[in-house]
Amino acid sequence: MALKSFIEVHPDSHFPIQNLPYGVFRPVPGSAARPGVAIGDYVLDLSEIASAGLFDGPILKNSDCFSQLNLNKFVAIGRSAWKEARATLQRLLSSTEPALRDNAALRQKSLVPMNKVEMLLPVAVGDYTDFFSSMHHAKNCGTIFRGPENPIPANWFHIPIAYHGRASSIVISGTDIIRPRGQGHPTGKTPYFGPSLKLDFELEMAAIVGPGNELGKPVDVNEAADHIFGLVLMNDWSARDIQAWEYVPLGPFLGKSFGTTVSPWIVTLDALEPFACDAPKQEPPPLPYLAEKISKNYDIALEVQIKPAGQDESHLVTRSNFNHLYWTLTQQLAHHTINGCNLRPGDLLGTGTISGPEPESFGCLLELTWNGQKPLSLNETSRKFLEDGDEVTFTGCCKGNGYNVGFGTCSGKIIPSHP
Amino acid sequence: MALKSFIEVHPDSHFPIQNLPYGVFRPVPGSAARPGVAIGDYVLDLSEIASAGLFDGPILKNSDCFSQLNLNKFVAIGRSAWKEARATLQRLLSSTEPALRDNAALRQKSLVPMNKVEMLLPVAVGDYTDFFSSMHHAKNCGTIFRGPENPIPANWFHIPIAYHGRASSIVISGTDIIRPRGQGHPTGKTPYFGPSLKLDFELEMAAIVGPGNELGKPVDVNEAADHIFGLVLMNDWSARDIQAWEYVPLGPFLGKSFGTTVSPWIVTLDALEPFACDAPKQEPPPLPYLAEKISKNYDIALEVQIKPAGQDESHLVTRSNFNHLYWTLTQQLAHHTINGCNLRPGDLLGTGTISGPEPESFGCLLELTWNGQKPLSLNETSRKFLEDGDEVTFTGCCKGNGYNVGFGTCSGKIIPSHP
Ligand SMILES: [Ca+2]
Ligand SMILES: [Ca+2]
Ligand SMILES: [Mg+2]
Ligand SMILES: [Mg+2]
Ligand code: NI
Repeated sequence: MALKSFIEVHPDSHFPIQNLPYGVFRPVPGSAARPGVAIGDYVLDLSEIASAGLFDGPILKNSDCFSQLNLNKFVAIGRSAWKEARATLQRLLSSTEPALRDNAALRQKSLVPMNKVEMLLPVAVGDYTDFFSSMHHAKNCGTIFRGPENPIPANWFHIPIAYHGRASSIVISGTDIIRPRGQGHPTGKTPYFGPSLKLDFELEMAAIVGPGNELGKPVDVNEAADHIFGLVLMNDWSARDIQAWEYVPLGPFLGKSFGTTVSPWIVTLDALEPFACDAPKQEPPPLPYLAEKISKNYDIALEVQIKPAGQDESHLVTRSNFNHLYWTLTQQLAHHTINGCNLRPGDLLGTGTISGPEPESFGCLLELTWNGQKPLSLNETSRKFLEDGDEVTFTGCCKGNGYNVGFGTCSGKIIPSHP
Repeated sequence: MALKSFIEVHPDSHFPIQNLPYGVFRPVPGSAARPGVAIGDYVLDLSEIASAGLFDGPILKNSDCFSQLNLNKFVAIGRSAWKEARATLQRLLSSTEPALRDNAALRQKSLVPMNKVEMLLPVAVGDYTDFFSSMHHAKNCGTIFRGPENPIPANWFHIPIAYHGRASSIVISGTDIIRPRGQGHPTGKTPYFGPSLKLDFELEMAAIVGPGNELGKPVDVNEAADHIFGLVLMNDWSARDIQAWEYVPLGPFLGKSFGTTVSPWIVTLDALEPFACDAPKQEPPPLPYLAEKISKNYDIALEVQIKPAGQDESHLVTRSNFNHLYWTLTQQLAHHTINGCNLRPGDLLGTGTISGPEPESFGCLLELTWNGQKPLSLNETSRKFLEDGDEVTFTGCCKGNGYNVGFGTCSGKIIPSHP
């Protein structure tokens, strides 16, 4: 591990100098939102670094992208700017560079303890799309809802299936989730209205779009990576009873739109590059517009814990990995634009629930409890679906040689429906 | 017809003083976008009227909502502001009021000939939702795709079904629509890729949301009208071959997201009120959260014309009416928020294709040609689906006693896929 920061970073930290994920924060309550990067237990205030003139590369020198209320302007510039910012910040934070290390006044202004800050949504999301890219998840859902014969829909191996999600209800990690009310329709009974009885999480990750594309101009799959700034953890909270009753024929709507939680730190593809791995072989081979020269996944270990109300301890309920995805991020993005649909900087592309092959790696309670038939034991209690007071926490982490590149956590607590 | 403007308005005009719909325009190419209202053959520049201090009511007197690039700030204030603006503008434009009538300099600055202006999207749309509220459309689609037994899905009479649409590709009337490319899968063949072979229009209207609601706080169905600023015409262009192959199980995606056209003038619910009529009786009765004290539709005559490339004439292909909707606008909005989903000012809620009971009133080519089985004759040519060069124009109009309250047109021309 060559690169080291002058800031002490614990070996277990998700945020060493090799990571430098981007977020938006308020240093104190009520102060203006601003971009920052995580380094160990600190947030580096990029508006202060920019004001001090330390972004001195050709692209960022005269840019005001770090004096914005969100990261949209920065991510829109593209990969050359991202590379320049990363190089500048790795130099500035390294143990051998005095500019920040030896400037006590600037350190005081620009390095804020992470436990003091309020994190906000890192981007303004114009449109949010959710894919369905894990074969194991598709198979399990199909088996549960339509039976074991042909559980995976005929189109699934040809198309990275997706639906448009609701952008307005995307919230930052830590936001309480109010149990949604809606219609359910248990088999053989009449439809009823009430708080959802089958509230679930969905373990996902999501890409943040960098530069967009013009309406009518698709993005080539081999250039799609240049349109992806980085990744976050995402919990696509789902009310299974509402979803099951409403989704034919136009797809999920109110079963999903009550809230979607994202983690605050966007880990860039550059930081993830050392953890790239081959995507699974696709059979049948995809149509030419989806056939890419390099088909890449990332080895990101994912975990979900549930902490019931009143318990001190969280319980690990699943362990999965980003590398279980069948359709790659770049295939998802290229497919999304092939009809001419325009993406805009800050758009969010969810991967879909990331389930692995083993039951211990399934990405939601629907699969883990097989639609409530096999309750999950959590110490002295058990769960078919989420109960009020349950706090659900996702973590994601890449293990390097002596360091991590991690995502921190994505969490939310269920609170009761309003009466 | 008591109220009359000092501006001469032809009796056939959609835009008499009784209407006063809101839009956003540039008076000359390259000038700043600003809000306006349509009056006869003119656009009244609201930024000039506000600058001249003529919005003198208590709510709008000190507001900058008419110096914005879109109408989001104005629609967010709510019905009291809309009523005040309407009263001010009807007074100012009336034949008996001298303030504008006798001020040549202000008339010169604020009244721009409609044929000179460039119209823009009237609002920035945060989220776009499309409902499925015409029973005839639901029945026809079900019959075509799933056969004549139980063509309407079981949930349809209980739920105003909807899907999340794509906000980024909403365009203003007059924007060319590039034929989308994508995957199709004709029965018995393998999937292929190419320009859509089944490009269609969908005759819809859409509500523009005024004040939003907080996440977790549903809107009561009896208060939902206060969250609707007004209506526009909407063409939800649809590629039937792409849609048919992709939509199981998550709903329409690329079959819709290549473009959605809206008309430039938002006709307010206040202007539509004289044309209110009873909504159809609902059987089974809706669940209590959807049961409203007054269930209202509007008598808005809708027409679709197609003008093939090289022909001088447009051909009327359907005549429908907004009053064919089964689920009302207020039920749609209340249902949308019942799970806690937050709406934001400027959100767009499409009604779904508005088909009537007779074949001559079906709202899309899928229904009109019965999925291409019965081509539609257009003078010397015929159509199963749209061809390159076809220009599709919607109009919508309420017939009053000696005047109209109209929507103008919503049009778009199909241009070939990029090679
Ligand atoms: Ca999902
Ligand atoms: Ca539609
Ligand atoms: Mg969600
Ligand atoms: Mg559309
Ligand atoms: Ni959206």
